[in-house]
Amino acid sequence: MTDTRTLTLSEIEDLSLRALMAAGTSEANARPLAAATAATEADGVASHGLAYIPIYCEHVQCGKVDGQATPIVSQPRPGVVKVDAATGFAHAAIDAGFDRLIPLAREQGIAALAITNSYNCGVLGYHTYRLAQAGLLGLGFTNAPASIAPSGGSKPVVGTNPFSIAAPGSDGQPAVLIDQSASTIAKSEVMKHAREGKPIPEGWALDADGNPTTDPEIGLKGSMAPSGGYKGVGIALLTEMMAAAMTGATLGIHASPFSGTAGGPPKTGQMFLAIDPGATSDGAFAQRMTQLVEAIHTQDGAHLPGDGRGAKRLAAAENGVAVNTATLARIDAILG
Amino acid sequence: MTDTRTLTLSEIEDLSLRALMAAGTSEANARPLAAATAATEADGVASHGLAYIPIYCEHVQCGKVDGQATPIVSQPRPGVVKVDAATGFAHAAIDAGFDRLIPLAREQGIAALAITNSYNCGVLGYHTYRLAQAGLLGLGFTNAPASIAPSGGSKPVVGTNPFSIAAPGSDGQPAVLIDQSASTIAKSEVMKHAREGKPIPEGWALDADGNPTTDPEIGLKGSMAPSGGYKGVGIALLTEMMAAAMTGATLGIHASPFSGTAGGPPKTGQMFLAIDPGATSDGAFAQRMTQLVEAIHTQDGAHLPGDGRGAKRLAAAENGVAVNTATLARIDAILG
Repeated sequence: MTDTRTLTLSEIEDLSLRALMAAGTSEANARPLAAATAATEADGVASHGLAYIPIYCEHVQCGKVDGQATPIVSQPRPGVVKVDAATGFAHAAIDAGFDRLIPLAREQGIAALAITNSYNCGVLGYHTYRLAQAGLLGLGFTNAPASIAPSGGSKPVVGTNPFSIAAPGSDGQPAVLIDQSASTIAKSEVMKHAREGKPIPEGWALDADGNPTTDPEIGLKGSMAPSGGYKGVGIALLTEMMAAAMTGATLGIHASPFSGTAGGPPKTGQMFLAIDPGATSDGAFAQRMTQLVEAIHTQDGAHLPGDGRGAKRLAAAENGVAVNTATLARIDAILG
Repeated sequence: MTDTRTLTLSEIEDLSLRALMAAGTSEANARPLAAATAATEADGVASHGLAYIPIYCEHVQCGKVDGQATPIVSQPRPGVVKVDAATGFAHAAIDAGFDRLIPLAREQGIAALAITNSYNCGVLGYHTYRLAQAGLLGLGFTNAPASIAPSGGSKPVVGTNPFSIAAPGSDGQPAVLIDQSASTIAKSEVMKHAREGKPIPEGWALDADGNPTTDPEIGLKGSMAPSGGYKGVGIALLTEMMAAAMTGATLGIHASPFSGTAGGPPKTGQMFLAIDPGATSDGAFAQRMTQLVEAIHTQDGAHLPGDGRGAKRLAAAENGVAVNTATLARIDAILG
């Protein structure tokens, strides 16, 4: 059993905000990250919630992130918003970009947000979710340091690079929210097994020669297995092109690690596309989504990614979230 | 050994054009389909080349496609082109849409093309390739009759639904072209095994209860296995939302089959997004793509999807393509 303490969502948000600011983050940069941290805990994704706050703080202190950065927003074409995150937190850059992207997508029917000089954006689906809440279909892409090898090769060239799509629903909740990485399993799972000295199942990672391994340490020195073989590599390339090549951000092969303190800012990128279903579907979108979701939910045992998220959020808002006390102790140490 | 005869690419195009018109297709609708057929043969994708012409002709004759249709183009918002394919061939609808999409994407930075009341568009990457030739990053989605079951279920709700991305290169050829379906293997491969009475490898298809099967007939009555499990379902949903829900086209659960003569027009959809890298990347795109492609090509044995396509096309243009004589006999019968 892990020792836990139950915190309300606003306590989680406040604690995150204070820790980030104590580490040298401006309030403007800390606020969106603190809000995302509380929402992530509400969704039950503890690995990307409060547990990340000490890492973010360390990264501000070592210069991997500029806690005082001001994102620079521009609009090079009628349908394109560009944000230079200036090596600050991705969340503040995304917030600044969404302020322009959302009205633009409604007006133009479609708009793109290209973010460069950025950082790990946490749970990608948190951001596309917000586009769906605004009544838009949101597509998101974010690249990461290389950890997946190309087909026929063994040296990593692309990250576990997730994509996300969120389709608006009828009640301000997304009808469908997909957020999936290109690898069979999250790299953080392999790192967790390495920390705990446990073997990993075959199919999660490969050694430096591209052979299967059950040793997490060897896997971390090799590469992550792409989901579905070459098609997983295809997804990682899709995201690498959208989030890095198309934004001018740093490729995964050149990016500094997201973990640890070495290498300076990763300067990776994000791309978000927002499309107004009212512009493209002649009003048929909501009915089609209802039919699609029903065809799944009327099957015994069948489910969609993200099912049950709504109930989980409601419960978290009412009862709070049980948080690991070791994490809380690490945050208390930052607050001094 | 299969009996073959070697035809030049223009002979393939001309033969396709004449057969389609003999079956009742207007010249305007037949031309883009004939050009795509020759290009597909040049790429070595024989399954979607001339072999499809007798099927297309049969579909015109049985009313699954309206050979005389005129696509209706509109522009509901500054960044969105809409085409009602009017149950005609997808190729003519895509052509009509691209004429507006390409200049619009350059002007706006990003533009969308939503096609409804459409049909099987053949090789999806053929179309995104053309966007890359125009210097744009092309994303494509096309939905198909349901054949993949949701996670936890066993009844198909989404098609093998491919997506494609084509990134422009320096010489009019795409730097990278990805075109992959959501299933482990193409449904046509399972159908081929069924015709030949051969068992299929485990992992290709599932029976009506969702269990693995090596019997292609049972697999065709069950569902296609998604690539990488639930992540393949995620890709199929991504494409279903983009190509059908977002365009107002018919969902895979309601679409008539692409094969056979029953059920009338499938009325499925396509979505294409075109983005100008010059608008989003501050001029860094070409260099990033070069670095990404080089990181792959400098590894022994590593390759990108579509590698060797250029050489294959050149050889086909010079030496022609060996075509199955049984296919040619079927086309001759249409020409009468």
